[in-house]
Amino acid sequence: MIVKMSSIATEAEIQAIDARLHALGYKTGKMIGEQVTLIGVYGDISRLPTEEIAQMPGVERLIPISRAYKRAAQKGDPLNPVRATVAIGPVVTGGDDLVVVAGPCSVESEPQIMEAARMVKESGAHCLRGGVVKYRSSPYSGWEGLGSSDQDSLRRGLGLIVKAGRAFELPTVVEILDPADVPLYEDTGVACLQVGEPNSKNQALLNRLRDTPLPVIHKRGNSLDTEAYLLWVERVMALGKENVILCERGITSCNRYTRNTLDLGSVAAFHYQLSGLPVAVDASHGTGVRDLVFPLTLAGIVAGASVVLVEAHPNPLIAKSDGFQGLFPEQLNGLVKAAREVWQVRKTTARDYVSTLALERTYEARMQEDRRRFFPQG
Amino acid sequence: MIVKMSSIATEAEIQAIDARLHALGYKTGKMIGEQVTLIGVYGDISRLPTEEIAQMPGVERLIPISRAYKRAAQKGDPLNPVRATVAIGPVVTGGDDLVVVAGPCSVESEPQIMEAARMVKESGAHCLRGGVVKYRSSPYSGWEGLGSSDQDSLRRGLGLIVKAGRAFELPTVVEILDPADVPLYEDTGVACLQVGEPNSKNQALLNRLRDTPLPVIHKRGNSLDTEAYLLWVERVMALGKENVILCERGITSCNRYTRNTLDLGSVAAFHYQLSGLPVAVDASHGTGVRDLVFPLTLAGIVAGASVVLVEAHPNPLIAKSDGFQGLFPEQLNGLVKAAREVWQVRKTTARDYVSTLALERTYEARMQEDRRRFFPQG
Amino acid sequence: MIVKMSSIATEAEIQAIDARLHALGYKTGKMIGEQVTLIGVYGDISRLPTEEIAQMPGVERLIPISRAYKRAAQKGDPLNPVRATVAIGPVVTGGDDLVVVAGPCSVESEPQIMEAARMVKESGAHCLRGGVVKYRSSPYSGWEGLGSSDQDSLRRGLGLIVKAGRAFELPTVVEILDPADVPLYEDTGVACLQVGEPNSKNQALLNRLRDTPLPVIHKRGNSLDTEAYLLWVERVMALGKENVILCERGITSCNRYTRNTLDLGSVAAFHYQLSGLPVAVDASHGTGVRDLVFPLTLAGIVAGASVVLVEAHPNPLIAKSDGFQGLFPEQLNGLVKAAREVWQVRKTTARDYVSTLALERTYEARMQEDRRRFFPQG
Amino acid sequence: MIVKMSSIATEAEIQAIDARLHALGYKTGKMIGEQVTLIGVYGDISRLPTEEIAQMPGVERLIPISRAYKRAAQKGDPLNPVRATVAIGPVVTGGDDLVVVAGPCSVESEPQIMEAARMVKESGAHCLRGGVVKYRSSPYSGWEGLGSSDQDSLRRGLGLIVKAGRAFELPTVVEILDPADVPLYEDTGVACLQVGEPNSKNQALLNRLRDTPLPVIHKRGNSLDTEAYLLWVERVMALGKENVILCERGITSCNRYTRNTLDLGSVAAFHYQLSGLPVAVDASHGTGVRDLVFPLTLAGIVAGASVVLVEAHPNPLIAKSDGFQGLFPEQLNGLVKAAREVWQVRKTTARDYVSTLALERTYEARMQEDRRRFFPQG
Repeated sequence: MIVKMSSIATEAEIQAIDARLHALGYKTGKMIGEQVTLIGVYGDISRLPTEEIAQMPGVERLIPISRAYKRAAQKGDPLNPVRATVAIGPVVTGGDDLVVVAGPCSVESEPQIMEAARMVKESGAHCLRGGVVKYRSSPYSGWEGLGSSDQDSLRRGLGLIVKAGRAFELPTVVEILDPADVPLYEDTGVACLQVGEPNSKNQALLNRLRDTPLPVIHKRGNSLDTEAYLLWVERVMALGKENVILCERGITSCNRYTRNTLDLGSVAAFHYQLSGLPVAVDASHGTGVRDLVFPLTLAGIVAGASVVLVEAHPNPLIAKSDGFQGLFPEQLNGLVKAAREVWQVRKTTARDYVSTLALERTYEARMQEDRRRFFPQG
Repeated sequence: MIVKMSSIATEAEIQAIDARLHALGYKTGKMIGEQVTLIGVYGDISRLPTEEIAQMPGVERLIPISRAYKRAAQKGDPLNPVRATVAIGPVVTGGDDLVVVAGPCSVESEPQIMEAARMVKESGAHCLRGGVVKYRSSPYSGWEGLGSSDQDSLRRGLGLIVKAGRAFELPTVVEILDPADVPLYEDTGVACLQVGEPNSKNQALLNRLRDTPLPVIHKRGNSLDTEAYLLWVERVMALGKENVILCERGITSCNRYTRNTLDLGSVAAFHYQLSGLPVAVDASHGTGVRDLVFPLTLAGIVAGASVVLVEAHPNPLIAKSDGFQGLFPEQLNGLVKAAREVWQVRKTTARDYVSTLALERTYEARMQEDRRRFFPQG
Repeated sequence: MIVKMSSIATEAEIQAIDARLHALGYKTGKMIGEQVTLIGVYGDISRLPTEEIAQMPGVERLIPISRAYKRAAQKGDPLNPVRATVAIGPVVTGGDDLVVVAGPCSVESEPQIMEAARMVKESGAHCLRGGVVKYRSSPYSGWEGLGSSDQDSLRRGLGLIVKAGRAFELPTVVEILDPADVPLYEDTGVACLQVGEPNSKNQALLNRLRDTPLPVIHKRGNSLDTEAYLLWVERVMALGKENVILCERGITSCNRYTRNTLDLGSVAAFHYQLSGLPVAVDASHGTGVRDLVFPLTLAGIVAGASVVLVEAHPNPLIAKSDGFQGLFPEQLNGLVKAAREVWQVRKTTARDYVSTLALERTYEARMQEDRRRFFPQG
Repeated sequence: MIVKMSSIATEAEIQAIDARLHALGYKTGKMIGEQVTLIGVYGDISRLPTEEIAQMPGVERLIPISRAYKRAAQKGDPLNPVRATVAIGPVVTGGDDLVVVAGPCSVESEPQIMEAARMVKESGAHCLRGGVVKYRSSPYSGWEGLGSSDQDSLRRGLGLIVKAGRAFELPTVVEILDPADVPLYEDTGVACLQVGEPNSKNQALLNRLRDTPLPVIHKRGNSLDTEAYLLWVERVMALGKENVILCERGITSCNRYTRNTLDLGSVAAFHYQLSGLPVAVDASHGTGVRDLVFPLTLAGIVAGASVVLVEAHPNPLIAKSDGFQGLFPEQLNGLVKAAREVWQVRKTTARDYVSTLALERTYEARMQEDRRRFFPQG
């Protein structure tokens, strides 16, 4: 962290900052320019009372230098970072194999979810997803999920999807909306909790999830900067919880054609530069256009995702929610097949990926020579 | 609602849609173009199973014609709309008088909130605001409010601000984050609940607020379109709750200088065209720059707001949260004084506001004549 | 196009609209709902004076139904659309082969561009890119390209890259900024003109490009909606010009980590749904992070691009502009190699892509049966 | 500027940076933290070859500390900044009086612009605006302005608006699109050039405007950050040109109800914190909704604008372009009247504006005492 003093700050103010930082246990350094003085703060600034410092007289602003999301961040050698694996029941994400989580937008009935589970299993996907509480943007949409009316209905709804998952040996991923419901999800045998986009910044819910042993897929809010999102993920991980999966599902932009703008640049940044956590991509919400789910899911894998979330339905024409983006069974089959091939290609082409760090020394040694070659007149 | 059929839809598909709509109790109309057929659906479409229809074979997409937020919408004669008033304790918003809600970002101690209440009262503001649970974007910021640890701490924190408010006859506005906490807010005497931006789409919380008699200030999420936000407000109002106050506090955009982009175009649209509910403007979060709160609050009033939310602190230099945007007491005094003058000017200049509807007939009658005048050669 | 009348429109106003549309040569249809009347306009609405109609008394707004970009649009059978090929010299884009356009941000000297051309050729790429006029966002950056001072310098600069391209049999792609420069680009032998993002909506330039026989790569402006961009492309194509290549190079969003947000959802939409033109992806500007160019370029190919633009430099450490995003030669080699493998996989996995249109009839026929299966109680 | 070294940078690399900076004439300072070393660069960094430095081995990134738009920036004492005035003919902007620039979207005929000028004069506005070349987003809109076909038509069109302006003693403001047209605008007597939003980053045009003595209204591009826009303004001012007027006309955001999002926070930032140039607000394009122009123009004045751009037409129902946002004459009269009152109120309420700088010392002196008062237990 750097403290930038205002151009009219007094010497006394500069010393007061310095003294306060030392009192807080930090070492400092100073750069005294012609117009402004900068004070560098060394050490673990995640515990620095930044607002107090920013408020002190003479301070213009704080300039962050290092990352504030310690747990969600990439660790280890930059050329060979440590990658976390997160288990959804017996299915391991973030490891050698691509993981596909598929299923209907919502659990509609026992025969529907049972048939959906069969479809998911037959496609070769690994986990079953399905919403039990499905509040919609319009409160008048009618269908809000089997489990929206009370705790009993929620228990029954969760039971149905867990039953279907067990029948086909598929661990289940279900969205959670209310912090009070965590025990019910744990008790009924849900394998993984999902935080949906509308709740990406729901602090009460995120705080509550620190305590559950279940893995959490935490979807990125649609207005969160790449790193700001990691700071919200950090809220779940702050007390030591480790089994969190990142998920890109689209942000808001100038686009009106697709439902959201799937940000694969951030997917690549998560995987290659910022975090060691497994990264999921959800092209169903990311495009909102059924026929774009195929190319965008594959693109997401190539960009860096190792987990795929996708909506599919035994007959999306009669789905009670989001059917317009749910794949037909044949489409799911095609997608899982292609996703596997693309995953292999990503692993193969990885041998052609050369990071800048690996080349810098070589080209540094040639700078003088290359300058002479390219600009012989200087 | 209009159902646009695909260019390759069959006649049987078109008839199937028509039949289904009739079965649902709707009247329909048809337009048969050279390439596509459109089916119009008449009546209250808020109960229409839109996804089912959108899924039916041959349908390309649904095109909405009228608004889906019936309760949050403007009612009455367009030239003389019905305006709702919402009471925060004895203070009436949406009526003849501007209402200023001021106070610190968070309740920090009894002496601090008591002094803050005195400051607010002396400035001429009408309500006291202050957060008791103050989760921050970084989980490491340290201070998360007096009431964040458990229900007892929350009760004590709420008690402090209510006590301070009563000492200075100021009803209190406090943010709520967890649906389970509603009874505690009601019991301790909080006058108005606030839904913060991170929870603008928190369905579990919004659903729970349908039942409380307390008024709710529902802040707009920073990626919500003007009308999409009203649909989320509708979620609180869906079962008949009426005392809701809209609040614009800034959206996300290309801007990096201000913390958010205060969208006063939407404030004007809420007030003049879309809704009869009182509109609040929060320039503290809308700019995140203390010295811009003054001009933007005044601009917000001119644009259409009748409620002002503003952060101020007896000494923001020692505030535990968001002090950088909290006004100094002298600034709050200046703002409330200026806000009153601007409010009077808005009421005065309102006589110069002429809506298009009022003029259309006049200029319609002159169209032929004006065409001849301006384009004598035709 | 649908004309939505206001709820207080008079019968005379509705008839006036209808009469005016008929006078303009359109057929119309009417839907008379309980609250509003809709008038449908049939025929080629690209010539409809929309503003005049929108202005007519009683009209609330116009609702577009079909696309206004006729030339840039996809043509043919939706399941088997017509795809255009565009030639850059002897290199054919939009056909069976992936085309890679590579080179430095700017032409810096004859030895530099000659070495760059060698690097491009050896990597296996097909065209050479390089800027001759390189105005930057800051006017103080110093380097603004070899050709920025006058027409002579521009001619010399263009001559250098064309010479280098010819030496290695690489047609050249160069950005153009001023409509007055078109003849110079044509005369010096540039093979393809590029419209950069800052000029995506530069009407004087776009109009001028209608007349040149050279192909044009028209980059999408960073705040243009998917389809709004196609309308700007249409400006170049309006009088019959056909050899235009679309290019996605990143839009503005909440992201701050990457320089722009590469919108691969729009790439897929262009290729699969909206246009038959070749689609290029520029991950150099799309990410602005050298180490993310590899994964995002590959992802762009999978999403639907058949042309790759990429910045590379014989030694980016001494590049005069945008070196931070320019690839090292080894990185370019790796990228071209991997891009070819990914291109093959895209062609292979295309067999698994199943469009909704192909399945709709099947699942339509099962709707009743599936409803009974999934909801036996009704 | 601060150079942040990578955590794996070698001592030799650090010294190489330092040596290069010294060779370039800069003084430097160093902060050596536990993980990273920072090098501060002192002096006028507007001439620093930032990319070369950013490229040097061991450098992670450059962190800007001070502003790069020297000419467009605010000058003088922060509490009493120097404000520039810019003359449009005899009309002075940025001074004691509000300036209203009004007129139709486009010059349509001599009688139309003459009548428009009369309307503008009678309303009390000060300058006449009107487009002569009016390219639209769709190339098929038909009407593209009187002057779009060739230089002769352009000369005639410019002549018409200048004639109308002179008849009513109104200097004229006309948009320019092609750098080649500058002499024609100068010769025909146009008083002020306007750069429209689509050309906000048109470098060839901006460079050309450095040479004209005419004042320039440079509209902000709809995806430009507040300060990034000032850097584009700087391009016009780079060689010493001073008579430039800033203009906010709306940015792109999540909003779909208004045509653009008028960013009054940036208007206030320009006026109060970043620049001494006059600031214009264009609520016609900023909202695209005729009935919102009134409240948003007034709000813009309160926020910090001293120039108002507004579209009005003698009969907008027959306007050939953008009539939907053009005011009726009565609306223009009402707006100018109200704008004057609001301008007076802004000047009056300015006495209540207290900047943080003026208060910091007072509250600094009370920090210890206030800490003891508010937190007696420590």
